[in-house]
Amino acid sequence: MSAMSHQDPESLSRQGTRPSARAQPKWWRIHFFRGMIRDVKRRAPFFVSDWTDAWDYRVVPATVYMFFANILPALAFSLDMFEKTHQNYGVNEVLLASVLGAVVFSCFAAQPLVIVGVTGPITVFNYTVYDIIATRGTNYLGFMAWIGIWSLIMHWIIAITNMCNGLTYVTRFSCDIFGFYVAFVYLQKGIQVLTRQWGSDGETSAYLSIMVALLVLMSGWICGEIGNSSLFHRWVRKFIEDYGTPLTIVFFTGFVHIGHMRDVSVSTLPISKAFFPTADRSWLVRFWDLDVGDIFLAIPFALLLTILFYFDHNVSSLIAQGSEFPLRKPAGFHWDMFLLGITTGVAGILGLPFPNGLIPQAPFHTSSLCVTHQKPDPNSESKEKTLRTIDHVVEQRLSNLAQGLLTLGTMSGPLLVVIHLIPQGVLAGLFFVMGVQALQGNGITQKLLFLAQEHGFCAASHPLKRLTRRWAVWAFVLVELVGFGGTFAITQTIAAIGFPVIILLLIPVRAFLFPWFFTPEELGALDAPTASSFTMESVGGVRGFEDGEGDIPTPEGVLKRE
Amino acid sequence: MSAMSHQDPESLSRQGTRPSARAQPKWWRIHFFRGMIRDVKRRAPFFVSDWTDAWDYRVVPATVYMFFANILPALAFSLDMFEKTHQNYGVNEVLLASVLGAVVFSCFAAQPLVIVGVTGPITVFNYTVYDIIATRGTNYLGFMAWIGIWSLIMHWIIAITNMCNGLTYVTRFSCDIFGFYVAFVYLQKGIQVLTRQWGSDGETSAYLSIMVALLVLMSGWICGEIGNSSLFHRWVRKFIEDYGTPLTIVFFTGFVHIGHMRDVSVSTLPISKAFFPTADRSWLVRFWDLDVGDIFLAIPFALLLTILFYFDHNVSSLIAQGSEFPLRKPAGFHWDMFLLGITTGVAGILGLPFPNGLIPQAPFHTSSLCVTHQKPDPNSESKEKTLRTIDHVVEQRLSNLAQGLLTLGTMSGPLLVVIHLIPQGVLAGLFFVMGVQALQGNGITQKLLFLAQEHGFCAASHPLKRLTRRWAVWAFVLVELVGFGGTFAITQTIAAIGFPVIILLLIPVRAFLFPWFFTPEELGALDAPTASSFTMESVGGVRGFEDGEGDIPTPEGVLKRE
Repeated sequence: MSAMSHQDPESLSRQGTRPSARAQPKWWRIHFFRGMIRDVKRRAPFFVSDWTDAWDYRVVPATVYMFFANILPALAFSLDMFEKTHQNYGVNEVLLASVLGAVVFSCFAAQPLVIVGVTGPITVFNYTVYDIIATRGTNYLGFMAWIGIWSLIMHWIIAITNMCNGLTYVTRFSCDIFGFYVAFVYLQKGIQVLTRQWGSDGETSAYLSIMVALLVLMSGWICGEIGNSSLFHRWVRKFIEDYGTPLTIVFFTGFVHIGHMRDVSVSTLPISKAFFPTADRSWLVRFWDLDVGDIFLAIPFALLLTILFYFDHNVSSLIAQGSEFPLRKPAGFHWDMFLLGITTGVAGILGLPFPNGLIPQAPFHTSSLCVTHQKPDPNSESKEKTLRTIDHVVEQRLSNLAQGLLTLGTMSGPLLVVIHLIPQGVLAGLFFVMGVQALQGNGITQKLLFLAQEHGFCAASHPLKRLTRRWAVWAFVLVELVGFGGTFAITQTIAAIGFPVIILLLIPVRAFLFPWFFTPEELGALDAPTASSFTMESVGGVRGFEDGEGDIPTPEGVLKRE
Repeated sequence: MSAMSHQDPESLSRQGTRPSARAQPKWWRIHFFRGMIRDVKRRAPFFVSDWTDAWDYRVVPATVYMFFANILPALAFSLDMFEKTHQNYGVNEVLLASVLGAVVFSCFAAQPLVIVGVTGPITVFNYTVYDIIATRGTNYLGFMAWIGIWSLIMHWIIAITNMCNGLTYVTRFSCDIFGFYVAFVYLQKGIQVLTRQWGSDGETSAYLSIMVALLVLMSGWICGEIGNSSLFHRWVRKFIEDYGTPLTIVFFTGFVHIGHMRDVSVSTLPISKAFFPTADRSWLVRFWDLDVGDIFLAIPFALLLTILFYFDHNVSSLIAQGSEFPLRKPAGFHWDMFLLGITTGVAGILGLPFPNGLIPQAPFHTSSLCVTHQKPDPNSESKEKTLRTIDHVVEQRLSNLAQGLLTLGTMSGPLLVVIHLIPQGVLAGLFFVMGVQALQGNGITQKLLFLAQEHGFCAASHPLKRLTRRWAVWAFVLVELVGFGGTFAITQTIAAIGFPVIILLLIPVRAFLFPWFFTPEELGALDAPTASSFTMESVGGVRGFEDGEGDIPTPEGVLKRE
């Protein structure tokens, strides 16, 4: 901890030029394809083990949880898009996009842990484009197809020119802001789903939905608490933790049909005809039936999409491979960017919403693959205090593929009917559970709790406690909250799709401005590299922190920073 | 701990004859009035300080919390009685009974910490009597008055013949069963209040009420958690803990009037005309207008009532003066029994439900009067773990009197209107909060958690862990649960008013049967005296445990048993 060499801020800010034994010297001089080639070279030797390692029980709960955590929010987003794009996108498009992402990334990605699917931002993107384009009389899906095609080209340029090396400047600072933002979007989505219940069905179903959502939240939270407690045999405990949320969803889907609730018609998740596009069209979008002017008008939109995906997908990958997970298989950001270009282009010409890396699902996926040891806390006399260490992560491709195939199965008629039974109140509850879970693990929450804590109740060994300037913690958190606030605010406006720009702008602020105001010790305690230097090797290593120091995790084992 | 001398079970069971330095030899030979006289002699010297000690801030939050915790359940019970006794009892009777209890006991009791009011069991008693009597054409309130008068006589006999000395056999075992039972009654009451919302107003208000009840529960629970955390300055934290529940009630009373909820008519607490009896009568019941046969028929009912009160009131007093509270002022069970006779008689001839000691309100009252010190747990490295020690209890009569006078004020017109605003859903939520709080502190819950805990996660210093026969813990808890189950089951039947008999029967089981099956070490770890030997001096000391041993609290300081 606080393990940086004592340099003055100026030398730190210039440290981009610092040569590193491992990273290529002068990495920014473009070596076309170098990143992708190295990614493949690094990862290819693990390809066979990615399948053989899947023979592990952890794959089962991870698949089940991911299936629900991926498909249910996706269905909620599909409802949004269905209404706001004049039924150009529906359930089947969203499901197929998830399947496309899952199959391509589970089989071919350098980072198969990253769950790929339809996110909230892309929903916003899609209907914002619709609002702008529909008035011009342009073929909407054709236009979207061209956005996909242009974006494919841009993604490939990014991959070929190794632009993912910019990730070297992305630290916990930006990831925490983004994670905090996504958690609040989930909470907001949950509330939005509930407010929509005041519809034609009258008020009764609205309050019943809120009641169900609160019960789902309480149930999900209790399952999580039991998982972290010392109650019951570890198998029982682990079962509750692994399947608590899925079983909660199943239980409350049945729950609304008992007693008085049977008489209330609650809105459930919307579905449409199995396997067919929602609109009356074939799967292949007639993208050639478009004015040349419109084709070129798609370029600026494609650029925005590409910026969004560059940030969103890479941060998902970073968080999913965060330093808290003792990963042993290398990452490959350039190669995955190339793949993302392919899925974006294919999704475009099939008329699907573009899939990309999912937060918080991607890190939840890695968590659920962790093989943990839980022991009584040796530092505590209390019987209930436990210490959980991660032994290893079951790094494989099967759980990602399997949840994708389950989603494909869901597209068939009978399973769609089952999905159709799930009340929207349960979905809102799931949003709350995921929002709360994401907030609990977030660095901003943890710093806020530290600041709220009374002096004297904080262990002297706490890294933030050892900082002499307490206002530095306040200032750091304040910048994070302002970043979050700005991002969240912009999402509520028509400029919503520009939201990653704010977080993107905060990266150079952190990298080049912060060292002028904070000491290296402070930055060492307040911030951290998101992923280990082992994972970051793909993009030229960790920057702004000395690597190889004690608190930066290595494949051999993790030493927690906080 | 496990501090009993190693006697064989037989000698333990005969140990009733064991002479004690302090207890009178041969205490069961009746010395009329001796208990009452000694109670008064012991307590009288503290009477002035009972008022001067009230100059303490803790009295304020204790008064506010007790006002709500006493009056709101009482109003719920009044609703029950109103409906089931053909409107012989209503809000005003219940409020006046609470005032009567509060004024008499706060001013004259030897144990002014014990909150006296209208309980659930007495509600059941009242309408069971109504069901039996109404068909005979007897004047119901006149009959109840005679029950009160006969019961007064029986209470006085109990007090004069020192029968409260039987409390010496009451240990945590019986108190835990009773507390567990009451907690479940509260949870059940909350659910019953909610199920009643499916009335004429349709379903909407029902679901809104459930939603509000869940939110009240979550809010009340979070307030309690914050109070026990290390967050915020201790004043802020303490404020949230002290006023969290009252403010939650106030907040959610307003909450149901915003947004969509304004359009839903939720049922609120029922009220009637200020200061007048609910039925068309004067406050004095015409108890002389009754057949002589009916007067004598009241005797068996009075006996049942007396048994109920002997147990309920004394256990309330015991728990309110439990060994976890470092009390410095002596107790007086005999004198309070005498007073309870008076209030029972007076309540009878005024046509009020009979007040007696309230669980869990009475122990909550003592808790809220505790001046605590919260420090980081010295045995724990963790920053959040705190250790709370009770410095002293603000032992005085004012908070009890003040909450009684507030209740009297509530009987006036304007405040009754305010009370009338409180939705029944909020009340249900309060029931849940109190039920959950009572369960959390209960010894049965704690033993169940211990049993549910995985081996190896339990501190070796845990007293139950040191027992060689683990099945002994199971057996002990099982008997407790059977006792609870029997009591709870009987309450659901017509024989409801006989429920204390089961718990009463368990006292000799514990005192004379258990020593044959459990070793003294086991009983020492599994059970404990409810109150310290200092408090128990009024009834001849603690029996079944060696007093003066390290883990039995003394007025000088408490050494926690578990």
